[in-house]
Amino acid sequence: MEAVNQTLLREILEQIAHEMSAAPDRGTVATYIPELAKVDPAQFGIAVSLPDGTTLTAGDAATPFSVQSISKVFMLAIALGRLGDQLWHRVGREPSGLAFNSILQLEREKGIPRNPFVNAGAIAVTDAVLAGHQPRDVLGELLRFVRMAAEDDDIHINKAVAASEQATAHRNIALAEFMAAEGNLRNAVALTIGTYVHQCAVEMSCAQLARAGRFLTNAPGAPRLVSAARVRRINALMMMCGHYDGSGEFAYRAGLPGKSGVGGGILAIAPGRASIAVWSPGLNERGNSKLGSAAIEMLVRKTGWSVFG
Amino acid sequence: MEAVNQTLLREILEQIAHEMSAAPDRGTVATYIPELAKVDPAQFGIAVSLPDGTTLTAGDAATPFSVQSISKVFMLAIALGRLGDQLWHRVGREPSGLAFNSILQLEREKGIPRNPFVNAGAIAVTDAVLAGHQPRDVLGELLRFVRMAAEDDDIHINKAVAASEQATAHRNIALAEFMAAEGNLRNAVALTIGTYVHQCAVEMSCAQLARAGRFLTNAPGAPRLVSAARVRRINALMMMCGHYDGSGEFAYRAGLPGKSGVGGGILAIAPGRASIAVWSPGLNERGNSKLGSAAIEMLVRKTGWSVFG
Amino acid sequence: MEAVNQTLLREILEQIAHEMSAAPDRGTVATYIPELAKVDPAQFGIAVSLPDGTTLTAGDAATPFSVQSISKVFMLAIALGRLGDQLWHRVGREPSGLAFNSILQLEREKGIPRNPFVNAGAIAVTDAVLAGHQPRDVLGELLRFVRMAAEDDDIHINKAVAASEQATAHRNIALAEFMAAEGNLRNAVALTIGTYVHQCAVEMSCAQLARAGRFLTNAPGAPRLVSAARVRRINALMMMCGHYDGSGEFAYRAGLPGKSGVGGGILAIAPGRASIAVWSPGLNERGNSKLGSAAIEMLVRKTGWSVFG
Amino acid sequence: MEAVNQTLLREILEQIAHEMSAAPDRGTVATYIPELAKVDPAQFGIAVSLPDGTTLTAGDAATPFSVQSISKVFMLAIALGRLGDQLWHRVGREPSGLAFNSILQLEREKGIPRNPFVNAGAIAVTDAVLAGHQPRDVLGELLRFVRMAAEDDDIHINKAVAASEQATAHRNIALAEFMAAEGNLRNAVALTIGTYVHQCAVEMSCAQLARAGRFLTNAPGAPRLVSAARVRRINALMMMCGHYDGSGEFAYRAGLPGKSGVGGGILAIAPGRASIAVWSPGLNERGNSKLGSAAIEMLVRKTGWSVFG
Repeated sequence: MEAVNQTLLREILEQIAHEMSAAPDRGTVATYIPELAKVDPAQFGIAVSLPDGTTLTAGDAATPFSVQSISKVFMLAIALGRLGDQLWHRVGREPSGLAFNSILQLEREKGIPRNPFVNAGAIAVTDAVLAGHQPRDVLGELLRFVRMAAEDDDIHINKAVAASEQATAHRNIALAEFMAAEGNLRNAVALTIGTYVHQCAVEMSCAQLARAGRFLTNAPGAPRLVSAARVRRINALMMMCGHYDGSGEFAYRAGLPGKSGVGGGILAIAPGRASIAVWSPGLNERGNSKLGSAAIEMLVRKTGWSVFG
Repeated sequence: MEAVNQTLLREILEQIAHEMSAAPDRGTVATYIPELAKVDPAQFGIAVSLPDGTTLTAGDAATPFSVQSISKVFMLAIALGRLGDQLWHRVGREPSGLAFNSILQLEREKGIPRNPFVNAGAIAVTDAVLAGHQPRDVLGELLRFVRMAAEDDDIHINKAVAASEQATAHRNIALAEFMAAEGNLRNAVALTIGTYVHQCAVEMSCAQLARAGRFLTNAPGAPRLVSAARVRRINALMMMCGHYDGSGEFAYRAGLPGKSGVGGGILAIAPGRASIAVWSPGLNERGNSKLGSAAIEMLVRKTGWSVFG
Repeated sequence: MEAVNQTLLREILEQIAHEMSAAPDRGTVATYIPELAKVDPAQFGIAVSLPDGTTLTAGDAATPFSVQSISKVFMLAIALGRLGDQLWHRVGREPSGLAFNSILQLEREKGIPRNPFVNAGAIAVTDAVLAGHQPRDVLGELLRFVRMAAEDDDIHINKAVAASEQATAHRNIALAEFMAAEGNLRNAVALTIGTYVHQCAVEMSCAQLARAGRFLTNAPGAPRLVSAARVRRINALMMMCGHYDGSGEFAYRAGLPGKSGVGGGILAIAPGRASIAVWSPGLNERGNSKLGSAAIEMLVRKTGWSVFG
Repeated sequence: MEAVNQTLLREILEQIAHEMSAAPDRGTVATYIPELAKVDPAQFGIAVSLPDGTTLTAGDAATPFSVQSISKVFMLAIALGRLGDQLWHRVGREPSGLAFNSILQLEREKGIPRNPFVNAGAIAVTDAVLAGHQPRDVLGELLRFVRMAAEDDDIHINKAVAASEQATAHRNIALAEFMAAEGNLRNAVALTIGTYVHQCAVEMSCAQLARAGRFLTNAPGAPRLVSAARVRRINALMMMCGHYDGSGEFAYRAGLPGKSGVGGGILAIAPGRASIAVWSPGLNERGNSKLGSAAIEMLVRKTGWSVFG
């Protein structure tokens, strides 16, 4: 693999941050979680973390933001470590072709969510990890995992965001109740949803998130938190389902596995090379960060990091 | 990139062919095209073609088979060359979450197929290339493209298979008529479907197909039939949608972009490294070659060719 | 049953016609069949035919119009006479909950249309009557049936309308091809659709249509073309499915079994009392005659003819 | 209207009860509410109540059973009395074409249930009546209404059944949460669902239920609890949607408006003539009482009470 010169990379990041800070059309900040609706859409940050931990940043890369659905990746890694392939009895591995919070698919497939990254699937994963434990224990495990991955203890859950999301969680509760009706939930709905909304409220900066994603590069020097085979599978799932029903578009444009969150963050992995985090709060019509998606596309074009050749 | 030793690769292929020839559960040969139902399910072939054209094979790699939906990849390359991004007004780029011949999705999205690899999408692509020309001209162009890609002129259309498929094409005609009703068809349904069934009836051996796929590796030495950027995009589409509603499973297990056909063939691309073709007529419940899928998974495990790290 | 005085009834009809002729919002004439798009939306006719044939009219009740889907009622009567309950292997008896030309439902239920009045179901009924005969024979039988029911030989098929509909029949052909793919079509698609578009092009005036519907009143004196039990069943189907996904609304407002057509006609039956025909070309958002629906609602309110008490 | 002789009617009921008591295939008792699963499937009761209150019975017509969804009719009458046509902003009037507890439709139509008799619709109706009041007040009003209609104060809610249903109410809670997410719920989900499960747990015997239904006959002598126009509309809704996705079948076979419950009861109305109640706990594949449906069909055949002529 031809190494990308760090000086060049730094220049590329500066160039991207510069272009993005001036972008007129920045998408729309998610409003359904009131706490998130307050975030200033003018912000943009980007960070690239190399396997050895060297982390290059530009823009607002030190500002913590709500990772939201990106937390699903870390909880999935924990669930696979705990349950192994047993997890796949409760959730599928196919893209959904529908919106991230669709109930329709869940009905068609009898309570088995299509993949671990649609909301229903992530709730099932959290429920599988919860398995009779206390929410605080599971959330503690998640924080330990993320902090170890990022080699940074200053990563926390924003309780105001969690409370705000809890108050508007009707649709996620509906998904959980529906799974309960179909026998695909093990804990009380309130416990599982309570855990889930707190997990989504983890906050990281781009720099922290990029560092936390290094274990997914499978590169020598990166933290090895799960087996190499499992890393490949998580990456495959991110590629196929990481951007809801905009996953095809992200694969087509960026060519990397990645996971987005409605807080405006995206984690993308260049296998063997780097972990990338971007953040810009405005979303496109599929619910993915508008400038974030464009930034990763630009980065990949300039670095040649696409997995597709 | 660490090169895989050719001797080792040859051994791997032999081992795979040996294991597959003995597999007791070989899936089910597609019966809806009578000509294809006659094919002996005991066959298995595999070929790996390196960018320079060196092609290693094992098993029944010299037996021609009906490529069926794999032809969609080549027609897509032609369509993109002809229309560029205009093509995307007529077909989407997202996985469908539904069966390959589903009409349901088409209704939900007003006649715009979800991607170029579901049947409706491929019919729209063929229709876009046809654009007032004669079917024989379009089929001639397809054959020229494939022969050039494979550097082999001995590639033909099996007219008995085309006739057999034409006779049972009700569902594909329904898709085309539905698109016509929604204003997303430019030619007479009979012309477009006639072209489509002939395109699906192209026959290649594994060796020929593997060679024909080299242009998608974007590797130095491989034929350059489309731009590097377009290659990446075609690979992305194959990754996301190449195995119908089993695309997630193939990505999860094999970790390569690929396209399957109901004739039992699969073309998979290891970007920068090799083009791979397998063939075994028995299909799994998603309509993809059962042993073919397993063979590519085994090959990737032994070579480390997954794009996911 | 308290008889409605004929003088009073005549007054009611005049009043309705007067009110409707002045209605400012008349709905939208269907445009997808070019011949029908030419019809002047200012027209309105109404006719009530008593079992003994006495027919009271008001407005444009002598102007022939295209009965379109109303023909499905007569073809269903013929099909039941020919096949009896065998017909129900090919078509269901439940309201669809979807638009009249939806393919979605057809896919969900494996090619068995939900009822004989959605397009797919009517095509299956026509196909069942066709059963190897010539289209002209089936159309001849339909005309004989309708003429006998109306006791009027001056009822014909408008060939220009049939040709116009044939030219834009893509969606109906799609439905037929889809049923063929699922094994629920016995004749060549072109023959069945050719018969179907001609059947829809039958023309009658309100007076003729009201007279033709008397056999569905099951009243002494009315022509007895099918058994009393079968009349009740046809009426039940009209009540449940006669106005596409506006059937509930029509039952709620009018309280009579009825069948509408996109030509703007409605046939409604007051069992034991009268057969009612209205016509006004403008349609509401569900594809049913806007003023026609209102007129029948008004008539039922003034006569107390609702079947619901 | 020819009156049916009471002696003859009594004979008919005896004959039906006799035939039904010997029926070998009695359907399947609903198991999802544990309390209901305990009911002995060998039971069968029937009662016909004439407008003046004369009530003829046969079989187990004095045994109280859980009316379940039949309660929706009474709550709808209360809701229409309270809100009038405002109610229709929150629930539609069309048959659903889907199972009684389907979420799919709810998603397609943005949280507006298709009609007041699918579960989601009934929950919306209960929520509309609740409107900030206490559940016990609403349940008190329901009991007063039913007791007045039946002229019988010995009608109660079975709290064990309510508790049993509450414990397995996941799917109904999912429907309520989904409506809450779409802004179509006014009270806390727990309050609305708590009211709903208690409303479903009202118990009546066939004799009581038949008497309670007389107000829907619109016949002189029957209690007049709602206006005549509203009675017709409630009957229309029962006809179109009263038997879930078996409504078409019931209309086709029985020809009367009716409402079934998973406790095995059915209330059917012969407008102007009689109110009919049957009960047999075993259900058919659509969730309606198997013998109950057959009994009403037989009764209508022998009395000529079909509304369809």
